[in-house]
Amino acid sequence: MENQFLKWLLPQIKKEYRLEVPPGDDAAVLRPPGGSRTVVTTDLLTESVDFRFSRSNGDKDFPPAATAYQVGRKAIAVNLSDLAAMAAKPEAAVVSVALPRQSGRKMADELFRGIIEELETFDTTLAGGDTNAWDGPLVISVTAIGSVSPGQCWRRNTAKSGDLLVVTGPLGGSLLGRHLKVTPRCREALTIASMFDVHAAIDISDGLAIDCSRLMNASQTGAIIDIEAVPVHADALSLSKLESGGHLDPIQHALQDGEDFELLLAIPPDDAHAFVHSDPQTLLPETTMQPYIIGEVTKNLELLSRTASGQTHHLEPKGFEHVFE
Amino acid sequence: MENQFLKWLLPQIKKEYRLEVPPGDDAAVLRPPGGSRTVVTTDLLTESVDFRFSRSNGDKDFPPAATAYQVGRKAIAVNLSDLAAMAAKPEAAVVSVALPRQSGRKMADELFRGIIEELETFDTTLAGGDTNAWDGPLVISVTAIGSVSPGQCWRRNTAKSGDLLVVTGPLGGSLLGRHLKVTPRCREALTIASMFDVHAAIDISDGLAIDCSRLMNASQTGAIIDIEAVPVHADALSLSKLESGGHLDPIQHALQDGEDFELLLAIPPDDAHAFVHSDPQTLLPETTMQPYIIGEVTKNLELLSRTASGQTHHLEPKGFEHVFE
Repeated sequence: MENQFLKWLLPQIKKEYRLEVPPGDDAAVLRPPGGSRTVVTTDLLTESVDFRFSRSNGDKDFPPAATAYQVGRKAIAVNLSDLAAMAAKPEAAVVSVALPRQSGRKMADELFRGIIEELETFDTTLAGGDTNAWDGPLVISVTAIGSVSPGQCWRRNTAKSGDLLVVTGPLGGSLLGRHLKVTPRCREALTIASMFDVHAAIDISDGLAIDCSRLMNASQTGAIIDIEAVPVHADALSLSKLESGGHLDPIQHALQDGEDFELLLAIPPDDAHAFVHSDPQTLLPETTMQPYIIGEVTKNLELLSRTASGQTHHLEPKGFEHVFE
Repeated sequence: MENQFLKWLLPQIKKEYRLEVPPGDDAAVLRPPGGSRTVVTTDLLTESVDFRFSRSNGDKDFPPAATAYQVGRKAIAVNLSDLAAMAAKPEAAVVSVALPRQSGRKMADELFRGIIEELETFDTTLAGGDTNAWDGPLVISVTAIGSVSPGQCWRRNTAKSGDLLVVTGPLGGSLLGRHLKVTPRCREALTIASMFDVHAAIDISDGLAIDCSRLMNASQTGAIIDIEAVPVHADALSLSKLESGGHLDPIQHALQDGEDFELLLAIPPDDAHAFVHSDPQTLLPETTMQPYIIGEVTKNLELLSRTASGQTHHLEPKGFEHVFE
């Protein structure tokens, strides 16, 4: 029963100043921070595309099956990652779900435990939602709302030729399990924005190559990626070994795998060097961020990879895309 | 291809002052009206629960099959109706969809044609979305954002004993087709709020009886509904006739059918009488609103129906509820 579920859920939402009207009415009313802009983003996750509750891929050891708790955390995290890519402070989120009728209540409890924990981790208030039951698999849609001072958000379309490209951590192989334990770079984004001049930003959700091409297309610039400077995650090495019969090299996983949720930033050279030579722990205690310069923004519109010896090659903007006919 | 779809969609979103950053980045940035509060609501619609693309119910003539265009309009309308129930001005909406892979692009075009038309009708900007393809049926999730002056929104929990209950139009039988042509009472709400003292409000989405009980529970009051004063829609009469073998009376349809999306308002007696005796067309040119006083708010917590002769009976808060186990 939706009513009984709401009776369980609503008392868990803390009273706080940002909620002039808390969830439970026709809508929630938020007090935005004085003079700020409202940043809004939405992401919808579906069972079998974004997560699986059971292994259905034969002999492979990955991706691992997800729990509803993990799905709840992830659904929030991927939305907060979009706010991070705008250098916006997370304020509130609303969550809509379509629950499988048979296991709905049990699943809803687990799911919302994850949702609430992830929101609390990032000091974000649950401002409402819509709980539906149906005969299909789990669908979860989150809209996250953040705040930013006027004109201060990071954009995709403002990278400049000569900027250096910085990623906030190693990439690739997320499918081994990191895709279910996403760490949105919210705190890191606010810290970086307060200390360095960032011209443009995107979060790496579908893969470095495709998301870099999106950043460059929006800015009407190109990029050269120094292929040996790209930080390859240990999971990319493991994944490459697990795949029998000559699949992708670790560096290809680092370039093409999605769900890393690190930030890709275009930063003028002086600030880029200052950033990557800072101790991350001094910038932000307890961060897991490890920034690396991986290339540069160019006037030439092409996306290129460059070897240590200086040879360049066209780089395909491969990555995850939703295909429909 | 999602990219090609977005190339079609994004140019249709008009540039406007409210969008400091338009859709196409990691998030959109909104300029809220100075000093206002942000009102946020979300509703998710699923194929087979909220609409059907084909008739799958044997000999019945209803509910009629929906087009993707109608689903797009409805998904926006039901969210705007929640804003109306708060007396909030619609400002922006984000839309997430899970599209059936096979017919995704064609369906997306139709769906977003409806979405954009409905948003334009209510001067609301499309602030972003997320387009997914999967092997399941259509799911659409909308989050609507509105604005209201501090402390000016209508609540559910502020009805007072002695208030009169007013509905903004006739009820029942929406399943014959009106459920696919929802008129959210956005303009009406702003007009009423500017002219009359409204103590509490809800939109009738799941049925008069259940939504009235929600309003009363939130306010810790009860209500008496004058059963012969409830405006019964012509569709409730038709639906009652269509149903073979003694189903519901027209008045029962008016009390229990969902998807009317009229407003139920608790208004002090003087203002309630002034409101229902005004010419709606003078209040708001071209409105289809027809307000009726249908009962009163009581200190006694019970929900009662009352006949013209004054007899009262317990009224079951029946209506649509999402059931899951």
